[in-house]
Amino acid sequence: MTRGTMTAEEFEALATRAVPYVGQLGLRVRRFEPGRVDVELPYCDLLIRPGGTICGPALFALADITLYGVVLSLVGRLELAVTTDLAMHFLSKPPPGDLLGEGRILRLGTRLAVGEVLVRSLGRSEPVAHAVGTYAIPESRDEPPGGRGSRVGEPGGTLEIGRG
Amino acid sequence: MTRGTMTAEEFEALATRAVPYVGQLGLRVRRFEPGRVDVELPYCDLLIRPGGTICGPALFALADITLYGVVLSLVGRLELAVTTDLAMHFLSKPPPGDLLGEGRILRLGTRLAVGEVLVRSLGRSEPVAHAVGTYAIPESRDEPPGGRGSRVGEPGGTLEIGRG
Amino acid sequence: MTRGTMTAEEFEALATRAVPYVGQLGLRVRRFEPGRVDVELPYCDLLIRPGGTICGPALFALADITLYGVVLSLVGRLELAVTTDLAMHFLSKPPPGDLLGEGRILRLGTRLAVGEVLVRSLGRSEPVAHAVGTYAIPESRDEPPGGRGSRVGEPGGTLEIGRG
Amino acid sequence: MTRGTMTAEEFEALATRAVPYVGQLGLRVRRFEPGRVDVELPYCDLLIRPGGTICGPALFALADITLYGVVLSLVGRLELAVTTDLAMHFLSKPPPGDLLGEGRILRLGTRLAVGEVLVRSLGRSEPVAHAVGTYAIPESRDEPPGGRGSRVGEPGGTLEIGRG
Repeated sequence: MTRGTMTAEEFEALATRAVPYVGQLGLRVRRFEPGRVDVELPYCDLLIRPGGTICGPALFALADITLYGVVLSLVGRLELAVTTDLAMHFLSKPPPGDLLGEGRILRLGTRLAVGEVLVRSLGRSEPVAHAVGTYAIPESRDEPPGGRGSRVGEPGGTLEIGRG
Repeated sequence: MTRGTMTAEEFEALATRAVPYVGQLGLRVRRFEPGRVDVELPYCDLLIRPGGTICGPALFALADITLYGVVLSLVGRLELAVTTDLAMHFLSKPPPGDLLGEGRILRLGTRLAVGEVLVRSLGRSEPVAHAVGTYAIPESRDEPPGGRGSRVGEPGGTLEIGRG
Repeated sequence: MTRGTMTAEEFEALATRAVPYVGQLGLRVRRFEPGRVDVELPYCDLLIRPGGTICGPALFALADITLYGVVLSLVGRLELAVTTDLAMHFLSKPPPGDLLGEGRILRLGTRLAVGEVLVRSLGRSEPVAHAVGTYAIPESRDEPPGGRGSRVGEPGGTLEIGRG
Repeated sequence: MTRGTMTAEEFEALATRAVPYVGQLGLRVRRFEPGRVDVELPYCDLLIRPGGTICGPALFALADITLYGVVLSLVGRLELAVTTDLAMHFLSKPPPGDLLGEGRILRLGTRLAVGEVLVRSLGRSEPVAHAVGTYAIPESRDEPPGGRGSRVGEPGGTLEIGRG
């Protein structure tokens, strides 16, 4: 990777300092491997919604940052990578408690990366939310031509991780 | 509406007090008509992300609350209505500044409501984000049978607002 | 299951006869277990698009029918279950050849079921498309109250299958 | 537009001949203006599903082709433009009859275009389905640098059409 790799600590610092609206959540990076990133959202009163469950925007923030980590774990410190779409399904209302977002890459292309995140309450198997989304990868001067594989939408060399 | 209607002031109070993670954003309800709700997100430093633009989770929070308002503007004070899915597309990186979410109903059924939100920077026509999503409407004891129309997925009496 | 269970043969008959636009594709059910259903789309010239790859609507048809199978594998022969939303991501352009849709449940509630499908070219690990979507489950007279668990969006007894 | 523009007739020929699985539907292009394209799906028995309504994959095919038209109406004859994601919401079960997909651009960038489609039964105002999705635009040698505006995800010169 010509841009250098990123460590879990570097990504946690980025996730908690660079985006204040997300940073105040105190996210903790629990896993940071190429294409596989888990992020924990510790419970706090800020997260509650009517009915006594955790609000949707906090779940979105967790999913979005987890996907950001999945992408940066593969392409290095390209902070300007941006979400272009994210489709969330809310599966069950999470009671107050810590949550874990488990993210993985579905496909890494030259210009676009697609990944998914499953959110669970810590210690319970029942999923709370599912997200799938796309990140646009900014061009990098020091990248060799054809470096990271073909774009999404074209056959060719890509990195992907199969189910299970 | 057997549950009574809701006013813009009541919805703004709900949006800013009941969900603290969203409430700290200081959202202002600019329009609150049945099936048409506009919500403003005033800019503050909490919202910034790398690159100097407004972060995705704040856009999601704005879109989600706007959709919540669209649904409550039609079904009354059913605070326990919950998002079941929300698909967001991020269209352009919004520079620091106030944003407006313009929401409208696409279809109101007995159990599910689908609506969409277009987010713009105030004073600019270029859209910043688009969201479309579903809310599940909790059952209400005092609702007459067949009251709000058929469920999504069945022909029959529904309320919807056409494009434009 | 008060409505009786369904076999792979019964589901394949339903998938190939009841919906002619899909039936002409000659789908084959390769796996039909509760919450886990795989469906094969055999290649034919009907499926081609400019560039010599398989067209998106055929991938959607495969994903939608696979999800339909996932739901019917759990709730029995409720043919009137309908898709309420489906979010597809196209990951790579599949060359001419047979495809396999691997579907699984994410959450089964009383009124809504959410599942996901990963589509691959047979014999290749690279994913071609990902779909996640919701089916609305029609009410059934002979179902005991509270029978299949709580609705999506509420904590409670549900059936779900964890990630791999 | 350096690649030359496209006419409604040329797009209809492309939609009905180049993709046989879609072409057999006999789609008719009813409007073809830059960023605004309407496509009609004439009813035929091929489209039916259990319950006597029109099947989801036919609605997806209509929405996808309408979006394809929206993109080609702006970028010219780039047949290799491909859908990267498409999120559909099914709003009501359409009875047998002709359908109309009304498509419009939300944002046209250099590499990605996002648009939406509302599907109605002809002669009825009630919407049947909503789709929003992204097309990846292949690079073109004869395009001037920076020609079509910035990429989705960056501020800058873009073409977009406001809501109604």
